Amino acid sequence: MSYHANSIEKELEIINIPDLEKEFEKSMSAVNHKKEADFIIGGAGSEYTLQHNISDFDNWEIVPSVIRGLDESRGNTATEIFGIKLKTPIIVSPSAAHGLVHSTAELGTLKGTFDAGSLMTVSTFSNELLKSIHEAESAAPWFYQFSFDQNQNLNNFLLNEAIRQGAKAIVVGVFGASFGRRERDIRNHFDFDSDLPFRQLAAFPEYPSGLDILKVNNRKRDINPEEIAKIKEQTGLPVLVKGIQSGADAIRAIENGADGIWISNTGGRQLDGIRSTIKALPEIVEAVNKRVPIVFDSGIRRGQHVFKALALGADLVAVGRAPLYGLHFGGARGVTSVLEQLRTELLNTMLLAGVTDIKELKNNARLEHSYPRA
Amino acid sequence: MSYHANSIEKELEIINIPDLEKEFEKSMSAVNHKKEADFIIGGAGSEYTLQHNISDFDNWEIVPSVIRGLDESRGNTATEIFGIKLKTPIIVSPSAAHGLVHSTAELGTLKGTFDAGSLMTVSTFSNELLKSIHEAESAAPWFYQFSFDQNQNLNNFLLNEAIRQGAKAIVVGVFGASFGRRERDIRNHFDFDSDLPFRQLAAFPEYPSGLDILKVNNRKRDINPEEIAKIKEQTGLPVLVKGIQSGADAIRAIENGADGIWISNTGGRQLDGIRSTIKALPEIVEAVNKRVPIVFDSGIRRGQHVFKALALGADLVAVGRAPLYGLHFGGARGVTSVLEQLRTELLNTMLLAGVTDIKELKNNARLEHSYPRA
Amino acid sequence: MSYHANSIEKELEIINIPDLEKEFEKSMSAVNHKKEADFIIGGAGSEYTLQHNISDFDNWEIVPSVIRGLDESRGNTATEIFGIKLKTPIIVSPSAAHGLVHSTAELGTLKGTFDAGSLMTVSTFSNELLKSIHEAESAAPWFYQFSFDQNQNLNNFLLNEAIRQGAKAIVVGVFGASFGRRERDIRNHFDFDSDLPFRQLAAFPEYPSGLDILKVNNRKRDINPEEIAKIKEQTGLPVLVKGIQSGADAIRAIENGADGIWISNTGGRQLDGIRSTIKALPEIVEAVNKRVPIVFDSGIRRGQHVFKALALGADLVAVGRAPLYGLHFGGARGVTSVLEQLRTELLNTMLLAGVTDIKELKNNARLEHSYPRA
Amino acid sequence: MSYHANSIEKELEIINIPDLEKEFEKSMSAVNHKKEADFIIGGAGSEYTLQHNISDFDNWEIVPSVIRGLDESRGNTATEIFGIKLKTPIIVSPSAAHGLVHSTAELGTLKGTFDAGSLMTVSTFSNELLKSIHEAESAAPWFYQFSFDQNQNLNNFLLNEAIRQGAKAIVVGVFGASFGRRERDIRNHFDFDSDLPFRQLAAFPEYPSGLDILKVNNRKRDINPEEIAKIKEQTGLPVLVKGIQSGADAIRAIENGADGIWISNTGGRQLDGIRSTIKALPEIVEAVNKRVPIVFDSGIRRGQHVFKALALGADLVAVGRAPLYGLHFGGARGVTSVLEQLRTELLNTMLLAGVTDIKELKNNARLEHSYPRA
Repeated sequence: MSYHANSIEKELEIINIPDLEKEFEKSMSAVNHKKEADFIIGGAGSEYTLQHNISDFDNWEIVPSVIRGLDESRGNTATEIFGIKLKTPIIVSPSAAHGLVHSTAELGTLKGTFDAGSLMTVSTFSNELLKSIHEAESAAPWFYQFSFDQNQNLNNFLLNEAIRQGAKAIVVGVFGASFGRRERDIRNHFDFDSDLPFRQLAAFPEYPSGLDILKVNNRKRDINPEEIAKIKEQTGLPVLVKGIQSGADAIRAIENGADGIWISNTGGRQLDGIRSTIKALPEIVEAVNKRVPIVFDSGIRRGQHVFKALALGADLVAVGRAPLYGLHFGGARGVTSVLEQLRTELLNTMLLAGVTDIKELKNNARLEHSYPRA
Repeated sequence: MSYHANSIEKELEIINIPDLEKEFEKSMSAVNHKKEADFIIGGAGSEYTLQHNISDFDNWEIVPSVIRGLDESRGNTATEIFGIKLKTPIIVSPSAAHGLVHSTAELGTLKGTFDAGSLMTVSTFSNELLKSIHEAESAAPWFYQFSFDQNQNLNNFLLNEAIRQGAKAIVVGVFGASFGRRERDIRNHFDFDSDLPFRQLAAFPEYPSGLDILKVNNRKRDINPEEIAKIKEQTGLPVLVKGIQSGADAIRAIENGADGIWISNTGGRQLDGIRSTIKALPEIVEAVNKRVPIVFDSGIRRGQHVFKALALGADLVAVGRAPLYGLHFGGARGVTSVLEQLRTELLNTMLLAGVTDIKELKNNARLEHSYPRA
Repeated sequence: MSYHANSIEKELEIINIPDLEKEFEKSMSAVNHKKEADFIIGGAGSEYTLQHNISDFDNWEIVPSVIRGLDESRGNTATEIFGIKLKTPIIVSPSAAHGLVHSTAELGTLKGTFDAGSLMTVSTFSNELLKSIHEAESAAPWFYQFSFDQNQNLNNFLLNEAIRQGAKAIVVGVFGASFGRRERDIRNHFDFDSDLPFRQLAAFPEYPSGLDILKVNNRKRDINPEEIAKIKEQTGLPVLVKGIQSGADAIRAIENGADGIWISNTGGRQLDGIRSTIKALPEIVEAVNKRVPIVFDSGIRRGQHVFKALALGADLVAVGRAPLYGLHFGGARGVTSVLEQLRTELLNTMLLAGVTDIKELKNNARLEHSYPRA
Repeated sequence: MSYHANSIEKELEIINIPDLEKEFEKSMSAVNHKKEADFIIGGAGSEYTLQHNISDFDNWEIVPSVIRGLDESRGNTATEIFGIKLKTPIIVSPSAAHGLVHSTAELGTLKGTFDAGSLMTVSTFSNELLKSIHEAESAAPWFYQFSFDQNQNLNNFLLNEAIRQGAKAIVVGVFGASFGRRERDIRNHFDFDSDLPFRQLAAFPEYPSGLDILKVNNRKRDINPEEIAKIKEQTGLPVLVKGIQSGADAIRAIENGADGIWISNTGGRQLDGIRSTIKALPEIVEAVNKRVPIVFDSGIRRGQHVFKALALGADLVAVGRAPLYGLHFGGARGVTSVLEQLRTELLNTMLLAGVTDIKELKNNARLEHSYPRA
């Protein structure tokens, strides 16, 4: 392939994720892949929601409890979802085309995620076949992110392959009935490189190339609530509905069979001007009322963000961009570095705030609204 | 004419309107028309209200609903006012002297607006005769913005001509009893170019040149509520009162016969230090109580702004500056590009927020206060 | 005298006062009087209060009323205090040493103020004798700002001279029991120039030079409430208490005989970290309950600020720095230009907001809290 | 020793502490000790809490009372704690390794603090032996900051030495069960210089060098509430618990024997994303309910900050960084200059706000919430 961003494998020294993002942009620009960096970093419209996904975490402040006799060695970030044991509550969100940043593509991310004791969600727009995912790392748990199409043959093709290759759950993306207007991409005339096909989609006989699918009009349909149950029945796997942003939608999803709620505004990449996910979280937690687990994404850049999301009721958080930065700089080991960085920051926050494990965090951590107040 | 800003006709590639504004300023400066650009872009006083007209949209955030089974092809922005069918809820506000930005002046705007399926409001301070408007594009619906004068002969002259040339409604501007202090214009010693006469005003026998009228003291009087009914009776046309900024004034206008309320602070060009129109909107919607349609202007720069204004109760929105930027860069086709850009952004917002048409938007869209931000 | 800042007499073209302030700083720096400019422009501490005096006006927004049938020619800013007719509600605050900016010193300010139909408050720290004030412009009304000293002989000397020279009222400054820490002055090692004596103070036999008095320890005492009545009795003149910042202090002053309340934090020059005067105003208006007139200063830079202060209950506003900028650039005519600029901005705001005179402004103008809200 | 930052002894001319901090950074960089400056100036994570510790003081505004007849000469900042008379309510917080900034290390700080009529808290991580502290300045009152270790032998060794050398109180630091992630230090690969041993720790036979202790895992344990009473019993001294950030922890500390509550987030150096101490103060004051004295630190940079903390219920405030800046530039005399600067600013604030002594400040000073600002 002529497309080349990086292929180095190494452990990373990370100060924090925001700094790593800046370095990523610089590094990608240096190898003539500024457009691809913009595609990954950017958001829709004015990027108001992208920015507020991050800055709205500052609307909550932690109140530590410090006379507890806690011992650092007892600090523990282990948790689980659907019976899958995880070393960390920070998992990997689906994102398209990991080949954009590193030659190992999704296989690098999968290995790095596994080494970090976490789990990965493989995107419909993966550069790798699900078969390769399965063969590369059969021990690693992974979810399959399913992006609904109007062509039911394609839907069946993808879901059946996901089952066959061992996905542990289906993550149904609900993004609305159109694509976000990402102005960076419009300005850059960004397009996916034909050297980086979406291999699983390309394997579907009706589309000669996986890339074409993005231009096919019939992708642009939202999912019906009833289709959640159908997917569940068809796959026999737990179904998480990803893209939930209100209590009403969470209830609708659960009543239609969802086994988990995944709060996301796809990192501010779809609709600009909407509220941040951390602002939406309390309403959704209340609506879900502990019936199913809640995964939270969009805006996580630091361990304190993870802490705050869990303290407000999320069960897991997911990160999409950060693992790609790690993948770019260090392949699988870079992905592990990023996930470990966030886990370390979370653990540090926990111990300094006065909690030693995730359960205690979720039950006892105290947050307070910062100034200003609505 | 020696005054020349541009005369190119072409479709535009637009990223967003704020960017287009910056390019407009640059382009006008390059042809020695910085003063004219400042006149169009600028606002009164410290431009506090100009800026808050835009930024106060951020005081509302959209809460999307995403499991609806919506299909992009069903998305529809059509609406109507006074029985006039429109492809878009985004119409053109009145603004003076379109000849400042393009040689086709108001005729270009009219054609571009028509091609976009929208309607234009022709200003009293037009560089074109109403007769030319009528003859150029007889199929295009247009409103006539009437700027009240103390000279009743002039008023009669203008209103009669508007009827004769086929205006679909009269938009009575209520701006207060003086002109706004636009500091850019004072600094620039801005004056309208004598090569660009206000042709319709110049046709009034008592004023040798249309430009002089701005210096005539007796223009500086506000309108009485009772005069609304008189204009309505005189013209037999629907009357919209433009410049409304409070519930009390909306009620006063309706009780005196107004057929529509047009919320506007003339884009922050009259009085600085007043509240933004989006801040004023809910109070006015409550006062109007669906008795007459509400047009909203001042601050609209993006599709999400249109969405928010409609979700809060407006029926149409109007844009004044943006079409001029389009006119400048591409004549009629540029105007169409601008109106289509905003319509496309709106439609995208609708589909991603979970509504497919304007009625559904107005009835079901959910907004939430953002945290107050300085 | 060797000290020289300017001596030009001319009318000024002013865009707005904030711009004039920047030009003033530049002009004073160009003639080696940056320290003096800093003394005038600067405030105490971190200048938090100086800045919030201005920016807190943005916490209120005007809601205009625009269908009134108002006629610009009826706009009128006339008002009065203690029976003195004024063309404008904007008077001149006391400030030290006008000789710092222009060779005509307080005599220039007095004439310029008179020509603007306003009144001036002469500071204890004037570079001119009260006799010169009296002789220069006997028709001009002026107040005498009295700065209380522990030396009763000095107090008597100054008050008696104020009576003899025709002061219309005594403005008793209450500033607390120390001097503000103005960091610019500390950094600059600012000191008053011996070429610019405080002539009236220097005329007091116990102090060889008027300048020395600032270093005399016994100035540093606050006034007692009972002393207000004594001054009133001694002078037979109305007494305004200047420096009031709370309802409790306003009540205390009135109960001890004050004929007027002058709200001021001396332009942020005394104590930093206190609330702005516009924030304090409503509480004081309620406490005063129309028993005596209220003068408001600190923060006024624009006509809309005057409008807001009057709408919230002030009767007059006062400006201290702005007339000095006018004096610097144009002598007496420059002072008139500045006062006319603010009056014109106020009148423009009134007419556009829907009120024609000061009484109507005070009774009918509508303000609304801006975002953010507490 | 080869490590050298400065050894000059002189009185300082200080404009304000924030400026001094900037000069400190510059001066340390000039002698190749930028890393050490970063260690002192910096905070954890994104430094959100570090910055809000300071800026949140602006969430309160002072309302001065100005007609009191106060006399500057009566102004008095004297106060006391545990019967120790102090000239100022501003004491010195514990901080590590004063040798980083000046060759006299803690002995310079001790003398400077004594000369300012204040008291110093000596850190566990002092570069000087407690014996040297005792001998250098036997008249100076000092507290010993005790940093709890899992090794009980070390704890006993340190506490016994503190008693022997005359500490007036034990300040037990409760910081959570880990070390803060200070990104500047991580980026700089900061480490303490072996030329600057922690002498008192190094005197403990089990650790060959005082520096090693920071790397010893067993330091990372939080304290139990019950251990407060044990330390109190063991030492027979008053025990202050430092690091309290909530009402619940204050109550827990008091119920377990604490003689004083020391509110601190260690200057934003431990956990980022937590609320500022000034935001936490009112809740803690209410919980303590005057049972024991409250020391307040983190964020104090100006006299108005001291004023606000005392007005909200603190009894003393403590500063950690500022004395180090003074020590750097002027040795003991520099420390005195810094403490006098803050005391002077406080006194100035008191007199201008209308209170003359600390008791009156605490009982009568009026604060008001400012408008919430981002």
